[in-house]
Amino acid sequence: MKATATANANIALVKYWGKRSSDRILPQNGSISMTCDGMATKTTVEFSEQPEHTVMINDEEFKKDEKDIHGHIDRICRMAGIRKHAKVVSESNFPVAAGLASSASGFAALTVATCAAAGLKLSPRELSILTRQGSGSACRSIFGGFVEWHRGQRDDGSDSYAEEIKDKNHWPEFRMIATIVESKKKPVSSRGGMAQTVATCPYYKDWLATVDEDLKNMKEAIEERDFEKVGGIAEFNALKMHATMITTKPSIIYWIPATMEIIHAVRQMREEEIQAYFTMDAGPNVKVLCQERDVKEISMQLAELEGVANTILCKPGDGAKIVSEHLF
Amino acid sequence: MKATATANANIALVKYWGKRSSDRILPQNGSISMTCDGMATKTTVEFSEQPEHTVMINDEEFKKDEKDIHGHIDRICRMAGIRKHAKVVSESNFPVAAGLASSASGFAALTVATCAAAGLKLSPRELSILTRQGSGSACRSIFGGFVEWHRGQRDDGSDSYAEEIKDKNHWPEFRMIATIVESKKKPVSSRGGMAQTVATCPYYKDWLATVDEDLKNMKEAIEERDFEKVGGIAEFNALKMHATMITTKPSIIYWIPATMEIIHAVRQMREEEIQAYFTMDAGPNVKVLCQERDVKEISMQLAELEGVANTILCKPGDGAKIVSEHLF
Repeated sequence: MKATATANANIALVKYWGKRSSDRILPQNGSISMTCDGMATKTTVEFSEQPEHTVMINDEEFKKDEKDIHGHIDRICRMAGIRKHAKVVSESNFPVAAGLASSASGFAALTVATCAAAGLKLSPRELSILTRQGSGSACRSIFGGFVEWHRGQRDDGSDSYAEEIKDKNHWPEFRMIATIVESKKKPVSSRGGMAQTVATCPYYKDWLATVDEDLKNMKEAIEERDFEKVGGIAEFNALKMHATMITTKPSIIYWIPATMEIIHAVRQMREEEIQAYFTMDAGPNVKVLCQERDVKEISMQLAELEGVANTILCKPGDGAKIVSEHLF
Repeated sequence: MKATATANANIALVKYWGKRSSDRILPQNGSISMTCDGMATKTTVEFSEQPEHTVMINDEEFKKDEKDIHGHIDRICRMAGIRKHAKVVSESNFPVAAGLASSASGFAALTVATCAAAGLKLSPRELSILTRQGSGSACRSIFGGFVEWHRGQRDDGSDSYAEEIKDKNHWPEFRMIATIVESKKKPVSSRGGMAQTVATCPYYKDWLATVDEDLKNMKEAIEERDFEKVGGIAEFNALKMHATMITTKPSIIYWIPATMEIIHAVRQMREEEIQAYFTMDAGPNVKVLCQERDVKEISMQLAELEGVANTILCKPGDGAKIVSEHLF
């Protein structure tokens, strides 16, 4: 009744922004991500006779917020027919400030570990569907390399799952450099922000109308290992998403001075024939997509920018896995 | 055959971005602006026997670029049946770096002075239509206070003119503080930029679909002198316009670090109950809309921002006028 699992964070190349059902966390559109090697959360779940679930994240007791970790554990307990309570201990090896969606690696590792501890044998697709119900984009972290999360059509969510894009050995030259910028303010949460966007943004329907083409082109580009095509689609897709945030009422503006500094620096790099593209999520940090051969030059240029406190480098990584299981 | 005219710059509260005809400079949508008191261009036009038009702007000879000043003078000469050439001397009393559309005050003053020197008597509406053919937003600078430029429907442009919004004595408490920020790069010209947006931006049709409501609400807000309503509509309209720029292919990103600094500062001011709103045009500068009573506090806070080099204050000003005429 005890198991440990790890899962990597993921960074979307075609973004998820907006739910069609918040109950089951069903997205308005499909998305594609890269699973980030070494940006891992390791979670141990043990079922015992304690009176309620307890959750420790990075040595701090988890306080209930809009992320319903307890409810997610309950969901798995119901599936497994377990009436005990879980003791969860979770550690991430990357700073939350990296804007790397620790909830993605966290919910993926939690789901895999809880299922294992509960003796629940699920296929990767089933695990992905289950993980999705805890935190949408976490369903992509079940898989390694480049991953597509299908929007699905059904109301019960049974066709809204992630799967790997065919890509033997995960494009070894592909890199992502996450910049960490100084920011004083806690930004709007993505969960709250995307609901506002769906409800109020005048451009949202055209965001949706153009995502399917982005998905199709991105899949092709990954399969062809066409870096410039991947970068160009990812960058424009991120700008389109941020444009819907900016035109949400009230406006959600995640960009800060450092964000603009990095954006313009990356565009300048391309003018100098360095293949670098940016993407951004629900926060001020910018992630720079590049290839191994350019990492040194790009990292050096990013480090020179005033607003950049730190950078983290990663490449396509593995999907979630069980690292130990003790069923007794 | 000599006349001098002045015209003030104007700043749009509901933006013009995109032409339906570049020949006659007909806009995709209507717009509303405030004419800026004291941000004036003074232009003297004299017809003589010289072999071609000569144009001096701020003591420098004008070099032909995409703004076709010579063609605009020819247009007026044809209307007036004049075969002489114009000597044009033009001075603006505000820095071009203010991002205050010197072409608006410039083309308005040029049109009024050239018509006067040519002995061409036109109504303000006719002057506005004529000015529009030189530089679109300049047609608003013919009028004072708050001005609406009607989109019009006709292909010949005869119903695409500006006119004053009923507002006796021009809302004396209304203020605009233009920040001047440091910027190294010359941004994309608005003429080139808007054509790219119309051609490539996936959100452009929804920009158009929402502008009419902004126009209606803005007119009401100005007539009611409801400052918060004016500010709220203006700010969101500017964000919607910039969102279309950001999602143009290739992306047009006018915002720089200082832009974000000011945007967030203005939003923060509102959290502290100071009524301040921002608007932005085709450049990195931010214009802050406020009322007389808050100018001191807002100016002080803006001056403390790292990226702000200077600020310029103005209030609603008069329309274009002839200051001297010598017909001999």
